[in-house]
Amino acid sequence: MPRTGERGGPETRRRISGIATRLFLERGFDEVTVAEVAKAAGVSSVTVFKHFPRKEDLLLDRSVDAHELLRAAVRGRPPGIDVLTSLQETADGLTGARHALSGVDPRAVPFFRTVAASPALIARSREIASELQQTLATELENDPAFEGDATLLAAFFLAGYAAAFIETVRTVMAGEPHEVVVATRQARMEALFVALRHGVGPS
Amino acid sequence: MPRTGERGGPETRRRISGIATRLFLERGFDEVTVAEVAKAAGVSSVTVFKHFPRKEDLLLDRSVDAHELLRAAVRGRPPGIDVLTSLQETADGLTGARHALSGVDPRAVPFFRTVAASPALIARSREIASELQQTLATELENDPAFEGDATLLAAFFLAGYAAAFIETVRTVMAGEPHEVVVATRQARMEALFVALRHGVGPS
Repeated sequence: MPRTGERGGPETRRRISGIATRLFLERGFDEVTVAEVAKAAGVSSVTVFKHFPRKEDLLLDRSVDAHELLRAAVRGRPPGIDVLTSLQETADGLTGARHALSGVDPRAVPFFRTVAASPALIARSREIASELQQTLATELENDPAFEGDATLLAAFFLAGYAAAFIETVRTVMAGEPHEVVVATRQARMEALFVALRHGVGPS
Repeated sequence: MPRTGERGGPETRRRISGIATRLFLERGFDEVTVAEVAKAAGVSSVTVFKHFPRKEDLLLDRSVDAHELLRAAVRGRPPGIDVLTSLQETADGLTGARHALSGVDPRAVPFFRTVAASPALIARSREIASELQQTLATELENDPAFEGDATLLAAFFLAGYAAAFIETVRTVMAGEPHEVVVATRQARMEALFVALRHGVGPS
């Protein structure tokens, strides 16, 4: 029987990431070493690296969820539902759940401050967006029911989602009331899907 | 009278970048120090840093042109010509001129190999794309004749252009004949502007 807490399990992964996140938010990303994270989590540095080959991923650990959400939005959509509708439903679900990937949760402000203060985390965030774009493009290419330009849909969706996410996070960091934050997110998502469906020109 | 070759001039900038590029392509980006570039160019490291605060920009020096091309495509378009038409004309002009920013020039293969081999250069390329997106968005926001979503147009355009650029570069690096490379570029640009004008959705 698998034990929770064993070195290789998802529980250990979550625990390491949780402890690392607390240390990074308290002291700054560059001020905390992987060895310190390992010590605080009661594991070896080798175990940390096994779960998180890159130090940045100790904090940016939600990217795994993001890949899974994109795959599920394509694979799991009911027959007759197009990909954009499915992606929009996924995005709306994140907003309703105050999911970390929606940007609406004020408890994430220390996280956003830590990322914004670290060039390494900003660079890794951009790289993750590029990896997510590739995941979505590949998923669409492999879907016989999808008719369209997988490369451009993935490029537009990720770039537009990232831009909307940043605008939402700005309202959170500016201390706007939750209703304003959610309204901003919803307006930006609506604008994104209108633009995905109908384009951004001319004018 | 300004002298060409003076420490602060654009001629010095071009010369330093040219010498740095030759060294990077010969030996790899991480193998060449800024001090070596300075010595080969006959200037001090301080002068190199004055022109290029970041080592990556010694190689990725065409981003200055890219910012200028985007600004000119918005500001310089004739009355009655929409922004997408103007951007498409700019892109077509780059293809015709075999400009470095079109990706069609086979002489750029060593450059692409050097970038692909360096995580620092790839990260800086992504950052430059983000800066270009911001330049285009700001230019559109400040243009009273533009009606539309500046943020999304800029996000979609840069993401789509980058994806098309990468596909073009792949055909160049695969050794395809120039006609095939140019045809790929033109097909991807046509698809990009159709998607920008009409969306990526079903149907």
